[in-house]
Amino acid sequence: MNGAESLVRTLLAAGVDTCFANPGTSEMHFVAALDRIPGMRCVLGLQENVVTGMADGYFRLARKPAATLLHCGPGLANGLANLHNARRARSGIVNCVGDQATWHRPFDAPLTADTEGWARGVSHWVRCCRSASEVGPAAAIAAAVAASAPGRIATLILPSDTCWDEGGVVAAPLPPAAPAPPDPHAVKEAARALRQGEGVLLLLGGAALTEAAQRIVQRIVAATGVAVKAEMSNAFVARGQGRMAIERVPYPMAQAIAALAPFHTLVCVASRPPVGFFGYPGGPSLHSAPGAREVVLCRPEQDVLAALEALAEELGAPPSAIPPRGPRPEPARGAPTPEGLARTLAAVIPEGAIVADESVSFGRGFYAESHDAPPHDWIHLTGGAIGAGMPLAAGAAIGAGGGRRVVNLQADGSAMYTVQTLWTDARERLPVTTVILSNRAYAILLNEYRAVGADPGRTALAMMDLGNPELDWVRIAGGMGVPAARAETLERCADLLRQSFAQEGPFLIELLLG
Amino acid sequence: MNGAESLVRTLLAAGVDTCFANPGTSEMHFVAALDRIPGMRCVLGLQENVVTGMADGYFRLARKPAATLLHCGPGLANGLANLHNARRARSGIVNCVGDQATWHRPFDAPLTADTEGWARGVSHWVRCCRSASEVGPAAAIAAAVAASAPGRIATLILPSDTCWDEGGVVAAPLPPAAPAPPDPHAVKEAARALRQGEGVLLLLGGAALTEAAQRIVQRIVAATGVAVKAEMSNAFVARGQGRMAIERVPYPMAQAIAALAPFHTLVCVASRPPVGFFGYPGGPSLHSAPGAREVVLCRPEQDVLAALEALAEELGAPPSAIPPRGPRPEPARGAPTPEGLARTLAAVIPEGAIVADESVSFGRGFYAESHDAPPHDWIHLTGGAIGAGMPLAAGAAIGAGGGRRVVNLQADGSAMYTVQTLWTDARERLPVTTVILSNRAYAILLNEYRAVGADPGRTALAMMDLGNPELDWVRIAGGMGVPAARAETLERCADLLRQSFAQEGPFLIELLLG
Repeated sequence: MNGAESLVRTLLAAGVDTCFANPGTSEMHFVAALDRIPGMRCVLGLQENVVTGMADGYFRLARKPAATLLHCGPGLANGLANLHNARRARSGIVNCVGDQATWHRPFDAPLTADTEGWARGVSHWVRCCRSASEVGPAAAIAAAVAASAPGRIATLILPSDTCWDEGGVVAAPLPPAAPAPPDPHAVKEAARALRQGEGVLLLLGGAALTEAAQRIVQRIVAATGVAVKAEMSNAFVARGQGRMAIERVPYPMAQAIAALAPFHTLVCVASRPPVGFFGYPGGPSLHSAPGAREVVLCRPEQDVLAALEALAEELGAPPSAIPPRGPRPEPARGAPTPEGLARTLAAVIPEGAIVADESVSFGRGFYAESHDAPPHDWIHLTGGAIGAGMPLAAGAAIGAGGGRRVVNLQADGSAMYTVQTLWTDARERLPVTTVILSNRAYAILLNEYRAVGADPGRTALAMMDLGNPELDWVRIAGGMGVPAARAETLERCADLLRQSFAQEGPFLIELLLG
Repeated sequence: MNGAESLVRTLLAAGVDTCFANPGTSEMHFVAALDRIPGMRCVLGLQENVVTGMADGYFRLARKPAATLLHCGPGLANGLANLHNARRARSGIVNCVGDQATWHRPFDAPLTADTEGWARGVSHWVRCCRSASEVGPAAAIAAAVAASAPGRIATLILPSDTCWDEGGVVAAPLPPAAPAPPDPHAVKEAARALRQGEGVLLLLGGAALTEAAQRIVQRIVAATGVAVKAEMSNAFVARGQGRMAIERVPYPMAQAIAALAPFHTLVCVASRPPVGFFGYPGGPSLHSAPGAREVVLCRPEQDVLAALEALAEELGAPPSAIPPRGPRPEPARGAPTPEGLARTLAAVIPEGAIVADESVSFGRGFYAESHDAPPHDWIHLTGGAIGAGMPLAAGAAIGAGGGRRVVNLQADGSAMYTVQTLWTDARERLPVTTVILSNRAYAILLNEYRAVGADPGRTALAMMDLGNPELDWVRIAGGMGVPAARAETLERCADLLRQSFAQEGPFLIELLLG
């Protein structure tokens, strides 16, 4: 058995059965092994950031790691930005990178690069195999690391001779690291803080935003009357009917500071302190009230459900049902507004839909208007590296399975980063409806420019303007095999959304913003 | 003066007057400085690998560095693959990366990443500024490093407070490192080797392929009768009438070994030993004949023209005119073949055209049929990281100026990597004719798969197939503002090429390969 075959068989034994790939010459033996061994679903992406972004989206829904297959240092480099986002989402990925043969590497052929060095910045674990016999055992460790709580990035670098040489050994699955149990002292501390009620915020992140967690959070809130918010960017939030109406900490500094000003104590549940996305001249890095105390109930690596249960017990919180949401909103009409789009979405999405949100500036207010939708799950851009939304949506569709519809709320500037994803959507007939929020500008930059001082002049405007020439998303999508249509009103958008939900494959709506 | 303004003024003083950019929030003060200070041409790319690839193409024609402007670690990561190619091309670039404010960085905001670590693998010089007063002096060093022979990548990381804080100082230009003079001993050694005539190969790379260098090479060849070849991938080759008919070392291992078998001695002129792109089972890393001797006349960092002059002197080589090429080929007809396309191109390209070649497998034989074209320059993918061709073409058009027409021979799979370049082509009305060689497959991988063993099965074929769904390049280009048409025959292709040459802006031809 060669090393490549031992890799595929070891990954399958560990439950890794999906591989997002953009292979190159050095990975041909891996591809040949996939040919011979059934059981691995291979999904091709036409650029590596599509590949790694899909692996992130997959993990967020499937709750188990997929593998990637990338080509040498530069192929890894192309996928780093979405690995960065995946790391911030705490997604687990077995990140496989083929590379030059061990004995060819010293000759510094053109593609030779510092593969390991580039991998370290996004990986919890990196190993470069030196022989075929190492591949299986290393793959078993990689799969276990990737599946360890809450999810980690394990990069396995595979020189091509370690794949084609004989001597491969299939390794038995290893147990992933279980989440650490809650700390009883932290539970007591959190309970003491929460008993103050007024001025206390329960700040939720990570696994504290699943439906199961929210059921316990509801008990805690009912017993103590504390406020609840989610972090600004979250890997996964269960929302809609049957779930709590949780708002996010706002993105703009002034709004974040205002939203957090009432709280003298923050109880962090798998969340981090509310740090600004960027520093601004004269502004604080931390957006919580000056002197506010942070009490950590549990870190993301810990058993979040157990920590919440222990906290509810400690507080003696009786059972409490999540109150029913208000009536489902009616679709909005007329020119698109953020609030109107959110209401329209809430009005038409099917139960169990997934919303992949890279709406950037336009979408900051979507939550307020969509709490009363049917039950759905929401996944965000987590690491701020734009170009995540399109592949996240594709990967989520594959990870969720069962034909669950994904709606990708997608800013136009960031859509262009990984526009190649549309081809994979078409190829795999994924149930993804992409809504391009076409404002023909890097709108976030116009806001930021004004935030740092003066009004933009001609050069600055030109550098934030995507309208010259205008991107025609209907043609771009059509060119990659995805049917598409344009909407200038919300009623047309609602019609197109409904139409896409009634079909099986992908669809793109270019929503023209005024 | 703030740091950003000192940066722009220092770069302009050093002659850096073109900036390829994809700015983000942390670069808004840089953008504001560009607004206030005239003289810097700013070219926007919609993804960072487009930005860095354009900077590479710019240097190859302008022979001076441009600046880039990238956003934080992930923005740099997106541009690493084409920085890798630029490093292999020995292009000079002042690579500016905005980043988190120095005092915000410890808070590990979502976009925070190992910017310096990622930069090191592609940079000859990296500096992260710590205060506004450092920015001007560091920019002067960066500009000098980038312009040092033969061309280097200088990465300047600019935390946002170093840009917005007052205390900026404009720094005077510093002298770039001049190329090292030829080594008289190496010149004598090379002359001794060349006097053997038979069995000696002059292997040219880097600056040995300019027109000026070829004039001296011609004298040496006329005096000694030695053979001449270029490296497989070259940053710049002067070709056509008035230039030598120089073939490249072939890419496929067997062809390269056969082409190099006759030579017991290789005299390297700014070239490296002929190393295979990849290692193959049982194959050699070095493709020159076993035991062949390498004699280095000069390294790429040395003064290549002076070394060639000294060698010609040492050999007592009398003046010799480059022989006129044969008659200009007629355009080919019928179904596209590599030879036919090369002849068609040679028949129709205008004098002074630039060919940006990322034709990958289809284009390996283009040289043989295009030696007799009018004078033109040819630039290759140098580092093997696909996705270079489209931005190289755009950058070359800007770097060459004067409306010189660029023809981009572009494989479809690699075109998709940086497809966003078409938007910049349209926006800047660049004289770029993109010829998409549409074989709807990763054809190179099919070859490589067969090279390593068996015939591809269903999974393998699916992973190399770009035909499901078919990419419609006419719609994709139109969607980004570039007029386009499809050709199924070479006569139609010739018509479209001529038509595009008669216009001012970009055009795309989708050439369907059988």
